This record gives sequence, C-alpha cells and structure tokens, in this order.
Amino acid sequence: MATLGEVAAVSDARLQGCDAATVVTGVAPLDRAQPGQISFLTHSRYRQYLAATRASAVILSVKDAVECPAPALVAENPQVAYARASALFEPTAEAAGIHPTAWVSPDARIAADAWIGPQCTVEAGAVIGAGVFVGPNCVIGEQAELGERTRLVAHVTICHRVRLGRRVLVHPGAVIGSDGFGLALDRDGRWFKIAQLGRVRVGDDVEIGANTTVDRGALDDTVIEDGVKLDNQIQVAHNVRIGAHSALAGCVGIAGSAVIGRHCMLGGGVGVAGHLEIADRVQVTGMSLVTQSISQPGTYSSGLAVEPNRTWNKISARLRQLDALFRRVAALEKTNNQDGSTQEG
Amino acid sequence: MATLGEVAAVSDARLQGCDAATVVTGVAPLDRAQPGQISFLTHSRYRQYLAATRASAVILSVKDAVECPAPALVAENPQVAYARASALFEPTAEAAGIHPTAWVSPDARIAADAWIGPQCTVEAGAVIGAGVFVGPNCVIGEQAELGERTRLVAHVTICHRVRLGRRVLVHPGAVIGSDGFGLALDRDGRWFKIAQLGRVRVGDDVEIGANTTVDRGALDDTVIEDGVKLDNQIQVAHNVRIGAHSALAGCVGIAGSAVIGRHCMLGGGVGVAGHLEIADRVQVTGMSLVTQSISQPGTYSSGLAVEPNRTWNKISARLRQLDALFRRVAALEKTNNQDGSTQEG
Amino acid sequence: MATLGEVAAVSDARLQGCDAATVVTGVAPLDRAQPGQISFLTHSRYRQYLAATRASAVILSVKDAVECPAPALVAENPQVAYARASALFEPTAEAAGIHPTAWVSPDARIAADAWIGPQCTVEAGAVIGAGVFVGPNCVIGEQAELGERTRLVAHVTICHRVRLGRRVLVHPGAVIGSDGFGLALDRDGRWFKIAQLGRVRVGDDVEIGANTTVDRGALDDTVIEDGVKLDNQIQVAHNVRIGAHSALAGCVGIAGSAVIGRHCMLGGGVGVAGHLEIADRVQVTGMSLVTQSISQPGTYSSGLAVEPNRTWNKISARLRQLDALFRRVAALEKTNNQDGSTQEG
Repeated sequence: MATLGEVAAVSDARLQGCDAATVVTGVAPLDRAQPGQISFLTHSRYRQYLAATRASAVILSVKDAVECPAPALVAENPQVAYARASALFEPTAEAAGIHPTAWVSPDARIAADAWIGPQCTVEAGAVIGAGVFVGPNCVIGEQAELGERTRLVAHVTICHRVRLGRRVLVHPGAVIGSDGFGLALDRDGRWFKIAQLGRVRVGDDVEIGANTTVDRGALDDTVIEDGVKLDNQIQVAHNVRIGAHSALAGCVGIAGSAVIGRHCMLGGGVGVAGHLEIADRVQVTGMSLVTQSISQPGTYSSGLAVEPNRTWNKISARLRQLDALFRRVAALEKTNNQDGSTQEG
Repeated sequence: MATLGEVAAVSDARLQGCDAATVVTGVAPLDRAQPGQISFLTHSRYRQYLAATRASAVILSVKDAVECPAPALVAENPQVAYARASALFEPTAEAAGIHPTAWVSPDARIAADAWIGPQCTVEAGAVIGAGVFVGPNCVIGEQAELGERTRLVAHVTICHRVRLGRRVLVHPGAVIGSDGFGLALDRDGRWFKIAQLGRVRVGDDVEIGANTTVDRGALDDTVIEDGVKLDNQIQVAHNVRIGAHSALAGCVGIAGSAVIGRHCMLGGGVGVAGHLEIADRVQVTGMSLVTQSISQPGTYSSGLAVEPNRTWNKISARLRQLDALFRRVAALEKTNNQDGSTQEG
Repeated sequence: MATLGEVAAVSDARLQGCDAATVVTGVAPLDRAQPGQISFLTHSRYRQYLAATRASAVILSVKDAVECPAPALVAENPQVAYARASALFEPTAEAAGIHPTAWVSPDARIAADAWIGPQCTVEAGAVIGAGVFVGPNCVIGEQAELGERTRLVAHVTICHRVRLGRRVLVHPGAVIGSDGFGLALDRDGRWFKIAQLGRVRVGDDVEIGANTTVDRGALDDTVIEDGVKLDNQIQVAHNVRIGAHSALAGCVGIAGSAVIGRHCMLGGGVGVAGHLEIADRVQVTGMSLVTQSISQPGTYSSGLAVEPNRTWNKISARLRQLDALFRRVAALEKTNNQDGSTQEG
C-alpha cells in the first residue's frame, strides 16, 4: 500500500492529472487495472487502452504524457519507473515465524520477522536475516547465511556455508553451492574427486532463475557480485566470478574459473570456456561460444541461424571442402600471375 | 485390469488367435512378458522373441501378423496402438486423500478422490481436480489449478495462479510459473525487476519433462496448448505460446514472446530467439538456432557436426578468411574478364 | 581423523620432514591450513605459500619436494594423491537413523547405520544400503535401491526401481529415473505416450551433478557404468549407455539409445544424437554436435568461437554464398584450362 506521491518519489516521476494522496495497493496491465491500482505504458501497442483504463495512475513517458486521457505518472524511463514502483507492492514475508511442518535446527539463527515455510529444512549454524522469506520445501544447509529481505520462492537448495546478500531473489529449483566438478585422473584413467572447499558468495539485489545451478569454489569462492541477474537453467561452475550488474539469459553455461566483467549481457545458451576473462560491458549473442578472453567491450557472436535443411546440408558439405577451395584459388592466382605482366605489373 | 477385447477397442486393433475375454493386467517387453500381460512388436529386431513369448497377446502390424506364432492384436500403427493400450494400465491415484505429512491450506479445494502425497505443500486457494495425483514433495502455489487426472510425479513446483488442464503429466524437478526474466535498465546500467503479473496456462494431455522450466507471463499468459510434449531440461520463457501437438526434445530454449506453431518438432538443444513466430508443422534439427520467423512448414537446420579436431581447426580458421577469399575470387574473375574475349565473349 | 602415515598410504606418497604418527583431521588450502590439517600444492602459483603454511603436511610433487620448507607428502601425481587423501575426511552418515520429519514406508528396508534426513520420502520396497546418507528433502521411489555408502546431498529424486551402486554421489536437484521421451504419432499428428518400462542402473563410484536428469529406459535399462562423472544440468535420455570412467561436463545432452564408450570426455554443452555409438577414449570439445558414430579414439570438434558481431555477420552471410563461390571457382578453373597450354601443359 502506498500513495501516488510515494510511488512518484520512488519511481522518479511527476504526477499529471492525479492526486498525490490517492492510495494504491498494486499494479496491473492497463486493460485490467482497477481503481486503486497503478498501471504503465511502455509499448506503443498498448496505447489504445489509455482512454478506457480504470487505473488510478499510468506510468508513461514524457512523450506519451502529451494529450494523455488518463491520470499519469510521467517518467524519463517509464520501464525503470514501473519496475521501481512495482517493487513497492512486492509480497514481503507473509508471516513471521516458522511453519509447523518446517524442520529448523536448534542451532540455526532465525530473525524474529523472517518466515520459514512448510516442509523446509534449515540446518545447524544457518543464519537467516531480518525479513527473509523462505518458501515451501526449501533446504538451507549448515552455516549458510541469508541477508535481509532475501526471498527463496520454493524448492530452493542453499548448500552449506553459502552466503547470499540482501534482497536476493531465488526461484524454484535453483541450487546454490553444489560441489564443483573437480577431478584428478590417475594413470589408469580413473577419476578421483577433489574436495570442494570453497563457498559461493552472492551479493545484494541478485536474482537467480529457476533450476539454475551455481557451484561452490574448489579452494577460493565462486562469486556473484551485486545486481547480477541470472535467468533459468544457467550453469555456473566453480570459482567463476560474475561482475556486478551483468545479466545472463537462460541456459548459459560458464566453465570453471571464468571471470565475467561488470555490466555484461550474455544471450541464451551462450557457452563460456574456463580460465578466461571477459571485460566489462561485453555482450554475447545467443548460442555463441567464448573460448578466449575478450578484452574490449562490444558485441560478439558465433551463432549460426537456420536455413532450410537442404540448403544447410549443402553449406555444411561445402564447409568441409573449404580448405581445398582455398588451395584451388591459390592455384588459380598463381596461374594468373604466371600469365604475364597484365595482372600484377 | 482390462480384457483383450477392451484393449483391442481402445487401441483400434483386431484380435488374432486370442480370446476377447482374457483378462490382462499390464504391459511388458516380449521376452519378459508373463501370461496376463500384453506385449508389442514395433521393431523388427525383436521379432525373434515372438515364438517364445508368454504374453497373452502381442500388438503388431498387419505385416508382422502373417504367420505370427503368438496371439496377436493387429493394428495399422502398432506404436500408437501400444501407446493407447499401455495407458489403460497407467497408475492412477494410488489412494484418495491427503498424506499425513503433507501440508494443505484449509483454503485449498481438493477433490475427494485426489491424492496429495507425502511432504507436499498445497497453498491457499489451490484447486485440485478429480483423480489428480500429486506425488511426494511437490509444491502447489496459491490459486493454482490442476485439472482432472493430472499427475505430478514428485518434486514438482506449480507456482501461484498457474492452470494445468486435464491429464497433464509433470515429471520431477519441473517448475511451472517461475517469474519471467523481465528487467529494466537504468542510466547507470543497473537492472530493475519488472513484476511478472501473468500466469501459465497449460492445456489438456500435455507432458512436461524433468527439470523443465516454464515462466509465467509478464502481463499476458504463457500458453502451452493441448497435446504438447516437452522433454527434460527445456526452458520456456515468459509469454511464449506453444501450439497444440508440438513436441520439443531435451534442452530446447525458447526466448520471450516467441510463438511456436502446431505440430512442430524441435530437436534437442534448439534455441529460439524471442518475439518471432514459427509456422505450423515446422521441424528444426538438433542444436540449431532460430533467429527469425519461419512462415513455411518444412525442416530447418543450422547445426554443424563434429570433425576430427585438427580438421575442424583448419575449417574454423578458413571461415575467418572467407570474406577475403570472396574478394580474391572476384579479383580473379575481373582479371579473367579483362583478359580478352575468349571467356565472356 | 587419520595419521599422516595413513594419509601417505592411501595417497601413495612418502613422508618428508614429518612424523607418520601426527594426527590430522581435515584438508585446507595452503594459506588457510592450521596445524592438524593437510594441504597440497598442485599449481605453481601457490608455491609462495609453502614457507609460511601452518599445515601439518603438504602433498606435492617430487619436483616441488626439492628444497621444500614445509613438512611434505611427496607423490608422483599430487592431484590424485590429494583427491584420495581428501576422501579420508569426507563426511559420512552424520547420524544413523531416520529423521522424525522423514516419511519412510513401513515396506522399505533401511540399513541400521544409514541416515534418512529431514522431510524425505522413502516409498514402499526401497532398499537403502549400509552407510547410505540421504540428505534433506529427497524422494526415493518404490523399489529403488541405493548401494553402500551412497550419498544424496539434498532435494534428489530417485524414481521407482532405479538402482544406484556403491559410493554414488548425487547432487541437489538431480532426477534419476524420470520417464523417457517415448511417443507415438497418430495419423492426425497427435502424440501418444509410450509407457517407459525400463530402469536406470548406475554403477559404483559415480558422481551425478546438480539438476542433471537421467531417464529410465523404454524397455531395457539406461546404464551409467562404474566411475562415470556427470557434471551439472546434463540430460541423459532413455536407453543411453555411458561407459566406465567417462566424464561429461555441464549441460551435455545425450539423445536416446546413444552409446558412449569408456574413458570418454565430453566438453560443456556437447550434444549427442540418438542411436549412435562413440568409441572408447573419444574426447569432444565444448558445444560440439555429434550426429554419427565415432569409431576412432581422438578429439572431435564442431564449436565455433566468437568474433566481433560485425565480423561474424559478414562470415555468416558469406557462408550462405559459399555454394555459389564453389561454382564461381569451378568456372574460373574451366576458363583457365580452356585458355591454352601455358597453365595445364
């Protein structure tokens, strides 16, 4: 619950045609919003709904504010303004306390206003901060720490000694702190597991998607810095570091000890090899493969888009003859050069 | 339990050398089937087991029915016939009721003949239809709805307000209704979460694989239409629509707002970019990348198959010289044209 | 707890400058190790910490043992020696028994010294071997079998009739024994599920990563042989066989009925098509696609590394003109041959 004045303040917007004292209780799309809700206009295709909306106020751009038929909150960047406003209405710990079906070790420390949901396990030495929400069926390992107002939606596994910062949001099925894939090979080709002694440290305001996995470090820690956003089904191997405010789309895989810079964006399905470094502000497009360090900001790609299967099979076959083609062209060039003075001279 | 007559009716087969009144209780492979079980022959390599099988009847094709030494159920399409027959023996809700270790909100509505398994959480407002089976350690969020005879195997997360149709089958670790990856970027390069207000709507007869994730819509809903089959580890982003009877193999990733047609087939590891449309009856082969809309049915590819590493490194290096090669060939063509009249004239 | 003598014996190392009777209780990195802990030196960049380490002994190579200022355990292969030593300190079943919040069917057989953690479900007919550790919130299906000293970290799903060998380690979110993706297509393009009647059989000393999925066989079993190591987020389809001591990195996907040899290594994100066979000792580099059988050991690739986006777009466009280029070069060759005797003669 907030007043329009409070919404305007937090979202850096100005009121147009509405009253700062009006109380609002949530957000909704333009065509479904009721009085007492705010809405927003970030795509022009929804502009048609402005006239008929019942929202108490609509967040929109300076441009869309001109001749706006609805009460408005006018912002430079309506997307950010909406995002910040919507955070006002995010659910907080629904209740304080520990659900009777949760099992909490007597040696765990749970803040008085935190919530531990049904069927959870919280092991010895875990520290759960103020306002934390732990949804149903989560597991918090020994000595794991969850900072203030962090939220685990459901079915999340936080392994032993993992540290999450404040306001971290973790979606169902995510696993933070699983063992890294550390193996030693003996002379007979058998693998021996190397103990994974590090932790995972996650900064503030990080979001971690459904079924994403982040391995603990082998010796040192795996680190996810402040403001990083990880989509679903991402794999982060041991000792990776992801710089602040980077965003990784679904199904990205990052191999061990890779360092990703700040403000990077990796598209869906991107693969990053181990033991390399990616500079700040690098963008990699979907399904590309990074095998070497990238020192310059910019956009990088290696994904190939589909063709009709028959065309693609021809291209693929031609690729395999490409080296021979280079030699054929070189032979032609040699021949032409031998022809006489007209071409080179 | 069914009679061979009932099996024949449901699987559109005719009896040969067996009695319609014979009672059967399950299915098994040819070499392991016992009297009272039916079996099937869909691959010729198993034909050797026909003579010795103890099955009460074998589902097979018109062709294999000739001189068949075993009692048979003869079908046009033995694979479909077997699939339909085997459904007769699928486990149904093992018991009606709520396991004593489950936690069910007093505000949830559970059909009398549904089963809620051990360690489950069912939150307020959830609606569980007739004959639904919820296996162990599942989470059903607030106001989620599960249609008749839907089955969650174990460890499934159905988030708030998600609607599953009838006879939906969800495998362990799947997450339906996690937040979409909706973010707004401010001037300083920090991300702000955009509230995800939509739902996921799943039709009838859908199968969703282990550890597959389907995000809820940002405003409108993410939609999986009737009869869609999703394999394991698939990622479906917010506001995607997957048309009826499409089948997606493991590890497919679909970005936000993509629309997949009906009767499509996507191979393993295929990536589909956001905000595009794929027509009905499109097939995409494994590990291909779709970056633009596809308007014509057919098969599309962009995957490249392995070569010995050394060969591949050469191809890869040559690719990077390809533009130069085009220029070299153009130069040769120009030279040849300048040579005189013999080539062009 | 072990003596340095015991550590030396298990890790095939010799003592240098330390006492075989010294008791040690754990492992730690060089710079953090305390007296009573052993440490190790496997990368030269940590050599600087040797002089100041407080470890009771440091595992290192014959070469690094020369002029070593610290007490040492000298080994041929210090990585393997360390791995084997660290196993001495691995946690074993923390307690014997069944946590009061676990639900265990009265028809399950649990070894007296096994541990079933909080919020677990163990169904009828399950057999849990000696010294097994089942962490919190795991599900063990009907008639599943876990061999001696196998360890499920947390949130693991072992489906009905799956068999795990001895000393298997399964990380959170993994699903072993989900249904294979077996479907039959009818004339109208609708899919019918084919019952998945096989099991998964996992050998001894296998490790299975977080959120990895292994499907049960359709008829016969899916098989993971002894010593196989699977990283996180891997998908193994029905009826796959993975040969002993093979290691698969994160996000690998293997389609149905593929057979992977022994001592193979698949890089991150590799895709393997179905119904093919890969020989022993094959290595495939990251994000490559295997579409046909590989009969010779060696390293195989088809991944393409990123270029700056603009460069890549040019390469990608040129690829689509490649077939035409071959024809242009052929035309040039034909022309040159027609030119006269100077080139060919």
